Amino acid sequence: MESWNQWMCSPVVFGVIALGIAAFFYYRVKALNDGNETMKRIAGYIREGAMAFLNRQYKVLAVYALAVFVIVGLNLGWLAGGSFLLGAFLSLLAGFVGMRAATNANVRTTEAARTGSRANALLTALDGGAVMGLSVAALGLIGLGVLYMVFKDHPEISPIFHSFAVGASSIALFARIGGGIYTKAADVGSDIAGKVIEGIPEDDPRNPGVVADNVGDNVGDVAGMGADIYESMVAAIVAAMAIAISADATQIPHLVENASDNKMIAIGLPLLLSGLGLAVSIVCIFIARAMRQMNPATVLRGSLILPPIILAAVSYVVMNVLGVNQAVTAIIAVGAIGGAVIGLVTDYYTSAGPVAKIAQASTTGAGTNLIRGLAVGMESTAIPMLVVAFVVFLANKYLGLYGIALSAVGMLGGTAVVMTVDAYGPISDNAGGISEMSGLGKEVRDITDELDAVGNTTAAIGKGFAIGSAIITVLALFSAFNMEVNHVREAAGMGVVSLALTDPNIMIGILVGSILPFLVGSTTMLAVGRAAGAIVDEIRRQFKEIPGLMELKAEPDTRAIVDIATSAALKEMILPGVIAVASPVVVGFTLGAAALAGLLAGSLAVGATLSLYMANAGGAWDNAKKYIEKGNLPGHKKGSEVHKNAVVGDMVGDPFKDTSGPGIAILIKVMSVVSLLIAPLIAKL
Amino acid sequence: MESWNQWMCSPVVFGVIALGIAAFFYYRVKALNDGNETMKRIAGYIREGAMAFLNRQYKVLAVYALAVFVIVGLNLGWLAGGSFLLGAFLSLLAGFVGMRAATNANVRTTEAARTGSRANALLTALDGGAVMGLSVAALGLIGLGVLYMVFKDHPEISPIFHSFAVGASSIALFARIGGGIYTKAADVGSDIAGKVIEGIPEDDPRNPGVVADNVGDNVGDVAGMGADIYESMVAAIVAAMAIAISADATQIPHLVENASDNKMIAIGLPLLLSGLGLAVSIVCIFIARAMRQMNPATVLRGSLILPPIILAAVSYVVMNVLGVNQAVTAIIAVGAIGGAVIGLVTDYYTSAGPVAKIAQASTTGAGTNLIRGLAVGMESTAIPMLVVAFVVFLANKYLGLYGIALSAVGMLGGTAVVMTVDAYGPISDNAGGISEMSGLGKEVRDITDELDAVGNTTAAIGKGFAIGSAIITVLALFSAFNMEVNHVREAAGMGVVSLALTDPNIMIGILVGSILPFLVGSTTMLAVGRAAGAIVDEIRRQFKEIPGLMELKAEPDTRAIVDIATSAALKEMILPGVIAVASPVVVGFTLGAAALAGLLAGSLAVGATLSLYMANAGGAWDNAKKYIEKGNLPGHKKGSEVHKNAVVGDMVGDPFKDTSGPGIAILIKVMSVVSLLIAPLIAKL
Repeated sequence: MESWNQWMCSPVVFGVIALGIAAFFYYRVKALNDGNETMKRIAGYIREGAMAFLNRQYKVLAVYALAVFVIVGLNLGWLAGGSFLLGAFLSLLAGFVGMRAATNANVRTTEAARTGSRANALLTALDGGAVMGLSVAALGLIGLGVLYMVFKDHPEISPIFHSFAVGASSIALFARIGGGIYTKAADVGSDIAGKVIEGIPEDDPRNPGVVADNVGDNVGDVAGMGADIYESMVAAIVAAMAIAISADATQIPHLVENASDNKMIAIGLPLLLSGLGLAVSIVCIFIARAMRQMNPATVLRGSLILPPIILAAVSYVVMNVLGVNQAVTAIIAVGAIGGAVIGLVTDYYTSAGPVAKIAQASTTGAGTNLIRGLAVGMESTAIPMLVVAFVVFLANKYLGLYGIALSAVGMLGGTAVVMTVDAYGPISDNAGGISEMSGLGKEVRDITDELDAVGNTTAAIGKGFAIGSAIITVLALFSAFNMEVNHVREAAGMGVVSLALTDPNIMIGILVGSILPFLVGSTTMLAVGRAAGAIVDEIRRQFKEIPGLMELKAEPDTRAIVDIATSAALKEMILPGVIAVASPVVVGFTLGAAALAGLLAGSLAVGATLSLYMANAGGAWDNAKKYIEKGNLPGHKKGSEVHKNAVVGDMVGDPFKDTSGPGIAILIKVMSVVSLLIAPLIAKL
Repeated sequence: MESWNQWMCSPVVFGVIALGIAAFFYYRVKALNDGNETMKRIAGYIREGAMAFLNRQYKVLAVYALAVFVIVGLNLGWLAGGSFLLGAFLSLLAGFVGMRAATNANVRTTEAARTGSRANALLTALDGGAVMGLSVAALGLIGLGVLYMVFKDHPEISPIFHSFAVGASSIALFARIGGGIYTKAADVGSDIAGKVIEGIPEDDPRNPGVVADNVGDNVGDVAGMGADIYESMVAAIVAAMAIAISADATQIPHLVENASDNKMIAIGLPLLLSGLGLAVSIVCIFIARAMRQMNPATVLRGSLILPPIILAAVSYVVMNVLGVNQAVTAIIAVGAIGGAVIGLVTDYYTSAGPVAKIAQASTTGAGTNLIRGLAVGMESTAIPMLVVAFVVFLANKYLGLYGIALSAVGMLGGTAVVMTVDAYGPISDNAGGISEMSGLGKEVRDITDELDAVGNTTAAIGKGFAIGSAIITVLALFSAFNMEVNHVREAAGMGVVSLALTDPNIMIGILVGSILPFLVGSTTMLAVGRAAGAIVDEIRRQFKEIPGLMELKAEPDTRAIVDIATSAALKEMILPGVIAVASPVVVGFTLGAAALAGLLAGSLAVGATLSLYMANAGGAWDNAKKYIEKGNLPGHKKGSEVHKNAVVGDMVGDPFKDTSGPGIAILIKVMSVVSLLIAPLIAKL
């Protein structure tokens, strides 16, 4: 197909356009009024704290990246090493840009609310989020697109792509886990301090932890989430390409009439489809902006449901033009719809009936609140997993293993929109915090509260989506890993590795793999606990040693808290990070490829369900607490015994939903990507 | 080998001897003095409640058993159906006998403590437990031994053995889950009532829930645990035999010189070794009795460590006499030692440093207590899984898949002792409850407290052991299932089923399988919550409507509570039971054998870790509360704010450790056994 090379420029073209739009949004937001002096000062603290975290994190990551660069370079060639650096660098860049945008947009959202326009406030938060959303998808596509154009005929194309994904993954791992520890340590620390120190509510401006809490929203939900979604998108594309590259002719499904073009099309298609997904996302972002006068909930939910539909239509047209099997469109649609369904199920479990029941259970004690919340989290694993199973079933039916990977690409087609809506959440949350700390009136707070409430819902949907897409991506990577192993062995004239479940090596791998998600869950929970404890101690110290702080005559030393949270997050992210990166390497090189496949299968089964359980239980507890605060349980308002019971659940839920749950989802992605990268090195053992 | 048939009588012979000894213990205990009138009355209530539960449960199970009997009979022949009934009946019989013994021994232990002899009290509790321990192992071995002797040359030997295991499994499932719901509903319900109704402590004789609480200990920890361990032992033997039966000559390891005897030896050996295990256990029980003047902790721990060592020595001698490869002894030893190590690791996580840290975390709130407890539970999954992986590695290295099954047999060799020590726990717990309710003095209470404290430790060890042995048994069953499928296909001239991890059917199976343990966890937790709520309501009603109850002038209606707990447990055990039995059948018949293998693998990975996590977190919370009650946290005693925080953890831990955790372990066993049974029916789909 002669026009194929032109078509394959489109991902980069769309990426560049998206970057341009992101720049436009960035400067538009920046040019808005950022409020009075108090607002400016507080927003300055938050921005400074967020950027200080990124800067220090980047230094740690630079050391890690250089070390891995050398290891990859020595073992798989310097092109692969460079590609690893590129994948990592683009993730950091997206995070940096997105964070700057978010920490500018927060105070300007407050200011828009202050000048009385909900629509303008919504637009500001949305544009701020869109910078992150567009950058994430654009930089991923530009990176992979350029690599494709330059190296598509290079014999070493596989390690080049795989190491790009490993670069993306590594950053995601540390950004997500470090960010998750930071945000929850600050949150839980401020909560506890508010309780153990008389008369200091959680959001009180005298509480020195309150800035760190707002920084944490950005660090965790903007930078961390962005790196996570970026990684999923990159990994899904790379997995599909890897399957196409390592498959022999019989293993690639029949995509086009001309059989000689089949492999070429199969390799490029995931990238092309993701490019179309970005184009569709841009359109959807503008639709959402145009609807800003409407109810925020409608706008944001609509912008999550729209992309799958438009993407399916666009794919239908393009596949028709290219003469490609429309099974591709069907699978893209199934994947995209599957992702939306998983998001909506998460929404159900963290907002509707289950939440009311948790709130009700709080009336008989903290214990019953917890039992109910844990049970809700456990139950919530079922439908998302069944949806993934169903997507796998259909995708495989039409296009085999390649189809499974393509369904992941489809699920992640709307990445830019999902991330936009997701970054909107912490921006409007911050906007509320700034209006509270600046002592703005009730009307302002009402607007930011409304925006924030919607943000909580979209954050829950986004979290479910992130985990759901992680699961299907891991399945795709898993298939790619197994194919790559046997591809390498065949090329070396060796027999294929038996990956039968009856192989004791596989069983051993499954047993060991099933532990790892629990270990990451345990270490991240304890990390949050330790860091929160250190923050409580520092807050206590400040109230004891800073004269006049309690009487509002002196300012708290918020930087000290930011510093503790930063140091703790950076220190505590190491152990779970090492578990994720080292375990496939150790098992692969000592027990071989079959045991490593088992390791991935075991960690997938446990990691997928455990992260859904933790994320959803946490979200449900959070909203059960808010449900009571809104007065939905007659006779039990904020501050009552029953509310305090619900606060206990929320405190447990904090690390569940924002640290451990997402951390486990990323663990299984990193393990799969690293395995894919080292596959050629261990295939012949 | 001419003498083989004589050797193969030994399991039945040891079984009959063990039953005789059990009868001797039973009547010895029964003949002891059962105390004053109050003690007699209270013990009568407990006995009556426990037996009422068993009677009603048996009626429900009779319906279930008859239905399955017909289904199995129609599909796999009436011999298999009859064997199913036998497996189920023997389990019920063991439970019945053991419960009667335990509910006689409890009050006589109190009486022995009252007459001042700790050694006699220990002996009484031990003998009471030994009735259950010996019956469980003996009836299992007699059942399987007789079936072996009668049908060893029958062409349909496989379904006969498999359905015996399914019978054992089904009863275990309902006994464990029903018993677990009962015991925790009564416990949590009494706890909550004690808190919400002013001035009624948990163990107060005025609390109408207190008898049900004591009944629950018997129903859950004697009958439930007994059925569970019986099932594991039977399943491990059957799995090893099934592998030997369905393997072709090349798949069976080289066991004896004369190759023509190899298969026969391989089939009989698991039974023979279990018989030796029972003989060794009998000796160990008598050693423990002889040591009764010593510290109870030493006696009970010793009786758990001794059997593996003696069994290894005995196996060495017998294998030498029979001329069997001593790799068998090595594997039996590895399995037995592995089981002991898993038990000791459980002991560590539920008693030592981790518990002190949970207690310490209670000082900053219920939230931090819970976070720490959940993290401890998660971390505690690692070593047991690694131990199992190591056992699999060694067993496979020496004797392949057959070796893995043999290691499970080895781990369960000491079943009679483990169960004796385990049933000792609720007996001494009951003894303490009876002395409290009968208003006996502090000296009596001191003795029963000491016995009870040791019982808690051994219960934790027993729980860890039960889950650990469940995991290795499931691996063995899993291998047997896969071999059986391909054996049937080969016999029908069909190709083997690919069980490769890359098969999308396997992936779908893994995804679906990973949900099931979480669903059972969720349903059982909610069942406990609902039943506890109903009990609280009834206790409230009694205090309102029975005049004089609060002033000790009227008696509480304890039977009403027993009745609520019984009905709730029987009703609530249905759903998790159906999930366990139906899911392999549905997946097997709709998606085929490969998907079912994936289902088993997914549920194994998740079920193994999830049940360890829940059981150990629960045990750790329980002991953290007790740690504070014993005054180990200076300044925070029973009733303090910090203690209340620890009570919240304990309440969550109750269903974790005694309902959901063990329920999940049994889920994966039942699924595997059912799969093995239906293997011939789905192999050719």
